[in-house]
Amino acid sequence: MINDEFYMDLALQNARSMKGQTDPNPLVGSVIVNDNRIVGVGTHLKAGEPHAEIHALRMAGDKAKGGTIYVTLEPCSHHGRTGPCAEAIVQAGLKKVVIATLDPNPIVAGNGVKILQDAGIEVITGVREQESIKMNEVFNKYIVKKKPFITLKAGITLDGKVATHTFSSKWITSEEARADVHQLRSENMAILVGINTALKDNPALTSRIPNGRNPIRILMDSSLKIPLDYNLVSDNEAETWIFTSKNHDFEKRKELENRGINIFITNSKTSVDPNEVVNKLGEKGISSLIIEGGGNINASFFENGLIDKVILYIAPKLVGGKDAPTFLEGTGVEEMNQAFELEDTNIKRIGKDFKFIGYPKYGVK
Amino acid sequence: MINDEFYMDLALQNARSMKGQTDPNPLVGSVIVNDNRIVGVGTHLKAGEPHAEIHALRMAGDKAKGGTIYVTLEPCSHHGRTGPCAEAIVQAGLKKVVIATLDPNPIVAGNGVKILQDAGIEVITGVREQESIKMNEVFNKYIVKKKPFITLKAGITLDGKVATHTFSSKWITSEEARADVHQLRSENMAILVGINTALKDNPALTSRIPNGRNPIRILMDSSLKIPLDYNLVSDNEAETWIFTSKNHDFEKRKELENRGINIFITNSKTSVDPNEVVNKLGEKGISSLIIEGGGNINASFFENGLIDKVILYIAPKLVGGKDAPTFLEGTGVEEMNQAFELEDTNIKRIGKDFKFIGYPKYGVK
Repeated sequence: MINDEFYMDLALQNARSMKGQTDPNPLVGSVIVNDNRIVGVGTHLKAGEPHAEIHALRMAGDKAKGGTIYVTLEPCSHHGRTGPCAEAIVQAGLKKVVIATLDPNPIVAGNGVKILQDAGIEVITGVREQESIKMNEVFNKYIVKKKPFITLKAGITLDGKVATHTFSSKWITSEEARADVHQLRSENMAILVGINTALKDNPALTSRIPNGRNPIRILMDSSLKIPLDYNLVSDNEAETWIFTSKNHDFEKRKELENRGINIFITNSKTSVDPNEVVNKLGEKGISSLIIEGGGNINASFFENGLIDKVILYIAPKLVGGKDAPTFLEGTGVEEMNQAFELEDTNIKRIGKDFKFIGYPKYGVK
Repeated sequence: MINDEFYMDLALQNARSMKGQTDPNPLVGSVIVNDNRIVGVGTHLKAGEPHAEIHALRMAGDKAKGGTIYVTLEPCSHHGRTGPCAEAIVQAGLKKVVIATLDPNPIVAGNGVKILQDAGIEVITGVREQESIKMNEVFNKYIVKKKPFITLKAGITLDGKVATHTFSSKWITSEEARADVHQLRSENMAILVGINTALKDNPALTSRIPNGRNPIRILMDSSLKIPLDYNLVSDNEAETWIFTSKNHDFEKRKELENRGINIFITNSKTSVDPNEVVNKLGEKGISSLIIEGGGNINASFFENGLIDKVILYIAPKLVGGKDAPTFLEGTGVEEMNQAFELEDTNIKRIGKDFKFIGYPKYGVK
């Protein structure tokens, strides 16, 4: 059926396809309809480039006049790098604006709608609202909190293990699941591991799929133990940032800095506080972070209430073992009723495996 | 569409509804059709009572003559407690027999079909074959191996834990999932736990749902540590059988036997070998067993290749903890490529939780 949802779905589909290339900007799509025909389609491609509405207006040209514009996010009201879209819509003479959701950005938040209404344009909001909010879960958090949206990802067996008791871990999941992980890396601005995982697996943490974009690699390494010939500090495949404590190895730090590795010295003398890492990443404009840490890093992020989303690739296999590591270690909660509950859960097959998605109740979504 | 599958589905549906009440006999349903009308429907209800075909023939009466009988399992050829159904079908004058699957019972296995064909009746097999085989997975194993079909059931968190590091475990799963467990208990002839689980949880292991049937409770307790005031040996809600070692507490044994508890003394001096338990249960006519043991019992059954089916109720919550117990402990496999793979997997929502079903590749199905 050709209705408001039909056009908004097209705008959403275009917007979603840019996932990972608009950061730190939101994903936005737009469609202009006039006289029952689509006359313009636009999508925001990259921060610093025109917004979705501008692309759609350009495509529509004169045919925008008297038409209806569909946009997945409230048109902006502020003079940013590209000027307020709400004013451009007014100037183009559109009659009606259909919006999926208001902009959570406090400097827009309703002001775009006000400009449109003040100019006598009919405004409808809430068409495919949940879909649009979910699509921009990263932006929605970052624009309000100035901290990255954090996804914890792990590949586990059905009994929760990430390795056998001998630490054998290759491979838990199928090729299809691993390809999906590379896609996930490509959609995030940064990826984080702890030094134990780095030492054990010597990972590259790159996105090894066609057109994959490599995230910035974040290593928590309180004393700078990372060997100089390890991938993260020698392969030059992507930027690497290391967070360390005050009492790190100063010589090693110089060597790493000479290689172009960014070193951040945190406030503790012996360890690295995940809160400090997250705050610094936010300051540096990192809006999305994926954690592929071991069980202890994962637990410390969880216990600090820092995880926004959990993605688990669950392989239908069992390894057993009291000493086989699980993906969430540390001390854990005391009582079962203190468990971290996940909501808005979803599970689907991927190859032989299952992909689980859930959101911790404490998380900002 | 009214076709062979339509009638066979009705027969299957009737058969399935008797799950748990026909043991050790298979689930079987039958439908008789004549002149495009259903003239008889029959289902096997209980061992010792008439087979499905006999019930259907009785309902059909004279209208069976010249008709087609649908039956989910090959009609029997042997004089058991109820006489051969294949001969009853011949005598009733049916023209055609549609069978879902042949009887795996070596004393039938094709002989039923032979009797029918020798009498000039048209026989079709393989209509809804997989559905029928799956429905009788318990019988199919038991009739060939004379050992129970063993289901491992556990309620776990997403990180594989069955309790927190303080052993708090109430409740992991939702009410809906727990009701499903009681249904599962009702469908099994016996349920097994180890002494550690018995001591920790003092479980009753009964089926607490309307019309639930209590399985026989099997306890592995090498030295007879079970306290006399514990549910399993004091509540008289269901039979309890205890498997112990040669070096058990002899006084305690007398007290337990005086209460009507069955004690089985196995061949080891210090422990109880799960293989011995399983073989003895098979001898005693137990065709289905559900294991609700702790991580060590579960692991020992797994490592002995004794698990036919795994059912996990997975709660979307995380407890963490290096020392929090998982549902599969013991030593575990050495290398990831030695993991026990599960196949024919299925996952569905149940309340807030997920119910996973899978079959270990080594298992008899």
